Amino acid sequence: MRRILILGAGRSASSLIHYLIEHAAAQDWLVTVADRDATSAARMVQGGTAVASGVALDATDAEARSKAIADHDLIISMLPAFMHMDVLNDCLRLKKHVITPSYVPDALWAMDTAFKEAGLIVLNEMGLDPGIDHMSAMRVLDRIRREGGNMEAFESYTGGLVAPESDDNPWGYKFSWNPRNVILAGQGGAAKYIRDGATKYIPYHKLFKQTVRVDVEGLGSFDGYANRDSLKYRSHYGLDEIPTLLRGTLRKAGYCQAWDAFVQLGCTEDGFRMELESNATWGDYLDAFLPHCQECATRENLANYLGLEHHGAVMQKLDWLGLFDKRPIGVGGLSPAATLQHLLEQKWKLEPNDKDLVVMWHRFRYKVEGLHQTIHASLGVIGEDQVHTAMARTVGLPIAMACKLVLNGDVKERGVQIPISPVFYDPILNELETLGITFKEEEVEA
Amino acid sequence: MRRILILGAGRSASSLIHYLIEHAAAQDWLVTVADRDATSAARMVQGGTAVASGVALDATDAEARSKAIADHDLIISMLPAFMHMDVLNDCLRLKKHVITPSYVPDALWAMDTAFKEAGLIVLNEMGLDPGIDHMSAMRVLDRIRREGGNMEAFESYTGGLVAPESDDNPWGYKFSWNPRNVILAGQGGAAKYIRDGATKYIPYHKLFKQTVRVDVEGLGSFDGYANRDSLKYRSHYGLDEIPTLLRGTLRKAGYCQAWDAFVQLGCTEDGFRMELESNATWGDYLDAFLPHCQECATRENLANYLGLEHHGAVMQKLDWLGLFDKRPIGVGGLSPAATLQHLLEQKWKLEPNDKDLVVMWHRFRYKVEGLHQTIHASLGVIGEDQVHTAMARTVGLPIAMACKLVLNGDVKERGVQIPISPVFYDPILNELETLGITFKEEEVEA
Repeated sequence: MRRILILGAGRSASSLIHYLIEHAAAQDWLVTVADRDATSAARMVQGGTAVASGVALDATDAEARSKAIADHDLIISMLPAFMHMDVLNDCLRLKKHVITPSYVPDALWAMDTAFKEAGLIVLNEMGLDPGIDHMSAMRVLDRIRREGGNMEAFESYTGGLVAPESDDNPWGYKFSWNPRNVILAGQGGAAKYIRDGATKYIPYHKLFKQTVRVDVEGLGSFDGYANRDSLKYRSHYGLDEIPTLLRGTLRKAGYCQAWDAFVQLGCTEDGFRMELESNATWGDYLDAFLPHCQECATRENLANYLGLEHHGAVMQKLDWLGLFDKRPIGVGGLSPAATLQHLLEQKWKLEPNDKDLVVMWHRFRYKVEGLHQTIHASLGVIGEDQVHTAMARTVGLPIAMACKLVLNGDVKERGVQIPISPVFYDPILNELETLGITFKEEEVEA
Repeated sequence: MRRILILGAGRSASSLIHYLIEHAAAQDWLVTVADRDATSAARMVQGGTAVASGVALDATDAEARSKAIADHDLIISMLPAFMHMDVLNDCLRLKKHVITPSYVPDALWAMDTAFKEAGLIVLNEMGLDPGIDHMSAMRVLDRIRREGGNMEAFESYTGGLVAPESDDNPWGYKFSWNPRNVILAGQGGAAKYIRDGATKYIPYHKLFKQTVRVDVEGLGSFDGYANRDSLKYRSHYGLDEIPTLLRGTLRKAGYCQAWDAFVQLGCTEDGFRMELESNATWGDYLDAFLPHCQECATRENLANYLGLEHHGAVMQKLDWLGLFDKRPIGVGGLSPAATLQHLLEQKWKLEPNDKDLVVMWHRFRYKVEGLHQTIHASLGVIGEDQVHTAMARTVGLPIAMACKLVLNGDVKERGVQIPISPVFYDPILNELETLGITFKEEEVEA
């Protein structure tokens, strides 16, 4: 009997838990789902109570957390980033393997030797992005290297979006993930990438203007905007000498140009509380960012200020949000970003019958035997329903599969790991394919 | 004998110290100038050694600082903001009056009662901006109120610039003040002001586009851009009901449009170190912020990217800085802002024979007896030389005059004060006029 503890039973843990329950009998697993909310934990193990139980746990309670960790063989942490180091310290002390979809905290690298000496693995970045992006990129990169290819450019984009059949709004977007992260995307510093050997920087207010068009067969056209630090994995991927490297995020084509209107106005700022009357309308909200104009209506003033066509695609998207309808905002005392979030959570809600979409797209350019080659690899996953969304499946299933590998001794790696070697990507990408999570590859004209 | 201690003998303390020495005999003052740099302290009291001495003091050394403060009757703190609370705590404990040109630290308001009970004054914001701005504005505001006027709008702008006779570059700017503050001006959040009763916000990337033209007779035309928080003094000035309130900073006309090019590119970002080759040129620096363009030169690419006329006023200003000359940068590993500062400190240096300029401009709009009235009040001060710059005089002389008022018992106010009442503005503005620091007022057509 191997005992698995899942810390944090949020929305993105559904497919992970479902997989663990499904495989529990064959794998001799006992699964505990621990969440601050006992009801949520219980709901997550419905239909699997022979092999799984839901328990209430406040993960910030060090004593309760340690006790829960001590009782299990492998810990899966789905907790928010600020709690990771506490969990990781417990796991080292109590000698438990850990798997998490989260980024490697800087402080963790210093603990690599200690984890290795304890014979433990800390497997991080094991979800979608980061996670499947690492595995799918490294599988192709390793193959190109084996064939003697020399990488010239690597570009990689991922997006959590809405499925074409549920896409009924002009933005082509609904929330399948943390809304706040969508509103604040790109903030906190310039985006960094390399192009033809030179490091390039894009300040936030230019980020949604400098997009790349990405067409994915069968899924449509997308805008890609650069992530904050495209160079983070340069060394991990063995690409220290690559002249062009860019990682980014996908939105439906046309989204970025319209989102840029909010950025330009200042509506995505999060550092101060707005002073608006209690009965303020969305027009008043926009007026707060617009120059004074005695004669003109808000809509006209906004279009003129931002240089937008009055009946163009961007203004149509703003119209659809009801921003010019004199409707009251309904919340007060929030930042511009949080106020906007309040509107978008109503407008971009994933409805019960809606399905979400995950898209990932890589472009590899390389030279082999004197010839320039280009490979496109793309993944499109549509959610099954509101529970097993594409997001929950692509984040959770790789973690569950990694859990199986670790507990069965199929992974000998120890210490701080991210899934960039064949030990991880071969079995996990192969198993994901059996569940319909499959990359399409094509060689294209360079 | 009254003993005055000046903490911090930086460039802006010269006129302050000169005034104190000049009046020492008549006022029965003994002046101590304490600075981390003994040479600097000694130089500051040259020619006044009968009444003044320069001493070495590390103001971060609590024991040495306390000892120096204990030996004096009034403390003038010219130290950087982060040291203020330490000095203020010492002064309360040791029962000393304090005067400083610095902003009131938030934590100080809570000490108001304690200072009052100790019979002490902490007189803050006693320089130019803040300082002369408060006094000159309140003198007019109080007069308008006495005449039964009802304020409709108050706008106030200040700039530390270069005198017309020393203005020999197309930017119309040289550094008479901390260069870093000039490069980072406007960062750290949206600018806030009120217009016709509505609070307005300008994000940083729009700040240098939304300028106001200010013409000051005899001094020329200026661009005014909004300060971060124009509403900070709304209550202090008794303007809680005013529909329009804006405070800002002045630059020579045309400067803001050109500076905006740096803002748009991302050259003023300060949150990361740039990765540039050791032999990188200013062209490489700019390329790092520009989209890739195989075919075009940096200058052409920049003008196209920002939508600038290739031979217009903005590009001429950039040309004058030598940005397109393939000259090596000469520093590395700095932020974009610090790298740019390195260039501008060479190009915008106030030369030994140059004179600086301080400009302040207020506009008061009000209604009295049914009629709309407008008053413009403007101040232009040209520096005497490199020591007694307009900046040093306008920052230091009000402090020195306030020192005289406090020590002679002409100010009964105690506790935390800023100079907004006639007790301060009448004697100090009158004495400043005797030294040629005089506001011109004119009533203009509304």
